Amino acid sequence: MTRAVVLVSGGLDSATVLAVARREGYELFAMSFDYGQRHRIELEAAKRVAAAVGVAEHIIIRIDLGRIGGSALTSAEIAVPKGGLIEGIPVTYVPARNTVFLSFALGWAEVLGATDIFIGVNALDYSGYPDCRPEYIEAYERLAAVATRAGVEGVRFRIRAPLIAMSKAEIIRLGYELGVDYSLTHSCYDPDPRGRACGLCDSCRLRLRGFAEAGYVDPLEYV
Amino acid sequence: MTRAVVLVSGGLDSATVLAVARREGYELFAMSFDYGQRHRIELEAAKRVAAAVGVAEHIIIRIDLGRIGGSALTSAEIAVPKGGLIEGIPVTYVPARNTVFLSFALGWAEVLGATDIFIGVNALDYSGYPDCRPEYIEAYERLAAVATRAGVEGVRFRIRAPLIAMSKAEIIRLGYELGVDYSLTHSCYDPDPRGRACGLCDSCRLRLRGFAEAGYVDPLEYV
Repeated sequence: MTRAVVLVSGGLDSATVLAVARREGYELFAMSFDYGQRHRIELEAAKRVAAAVGVAEHIIIRIDLGRIGGSALTSAEIAVPKGGLIEGIPVTYVPARNTVFLSFALGWAEVLGATDIFIGVNALDYSGYPDCRPEYIEAYERLAAVATRAGVEGVRFRIRAPLIAMSKAEIIRLGYELGVDYSLTHSCYDPDPRGRACGLCDSCRLRLRGFAEAGYVDPLEYV
Repeated sequence: MTRAVVLVSGGLDSATVLAVARREGYELFAMSFDYGQRHRIELEAAKRVAAAVGVAEHIIIRIDLGRIGGSALTSAEIAVPKGGLIEGIPVTYVPARNTVFLSFALGWAEVLGATDIFIGVNALDYSGYPDCRPEYIEAYERLAAVATRAGVEGVRFRIRAPLIAMSKAEIIRLGYELGVDYSLTHSCYDPDPRGRACGLCDSCRLRLRGFAEAGYVDPLEYV
């Protein structure tokens, strides 16, 4: 059984990616990060989502991206915007986050003998976050080819971003086709102390719009 | 004053790189990693070396590469070889280590407004570790260009590896020219409980051979 590493945040995108990778028949190795995110509660969702799909292993790597700062998601000094989606790169961008995540995933993939690394970047993120664009994924794949012993020995790592060209609504429809239980997921950047979604941050707005466009009702509880 | 991020392990290569970056006039931001390495004592050397050169800031990022495993440097189950240098990639190779380190450095550089990231990879490592080769550094630079907000806005990050084509002896001669105090550094992969170098691991052998070829006496204490 071929192995794959899947980056799992606990959000709806990575839950869908897990289901896509399962459909393709991989033995799944889920990886999440406790990186100083203010919505750390997403890690509980990541555990639920990984358990529901039936992964071989799920590891949570603790890293302190807050030490670097520069983002509303890791710094208490920068507020999460609630006023609606804007043009350009939002302050919730975390410098080099996907690059750090993929680097850990690459190391784990090499140790596991996996060649495919799945990541849930998508077309909506594309408009805002630089490390969610196709040219970024391609550049990472070229790096992976020369970065590792496995690569030198001829292994060709693939960075799989199956949602990259899809809208949120398309992702949600695909997820329902594949049996994803979105009640297990968490998307909000700034949940209340009970873990309920704010409904106003960019992540909540994109999620709610996606469910509406897909013709489904979001099963999550909002404030 | 232009800022640069410098990866500092506490070894002789990164101590020399710090001196090179200082000579070029950068304001220096040193970054080290507490990554589960068995020679964790090198972090004390990193602090000494950074303090001696006069950095603006030195941060130590804690990450658990041992959770991923696959290396004699992070796994108690794989012994550090002491029998002499061999052909090929040694078991002290840590999967994706430089990729992880450079990713944190890239994020910090973006937050600091720095464009140059210095790393002490060199020609001797080149023969063994895949992530010390020129094609690796070039691939990382291409990734950095598309990975960040700064890159999208036109900043061109440079991964600076000034030692990459140098032998250990050449590095040591350069360091003495620049006033590096090598008594502050630590290179051994498997020091004794008092922190003394073993003299037998690959890192000790390369270091001792380098000092001998350069015509200097290594100021470190060996077992």
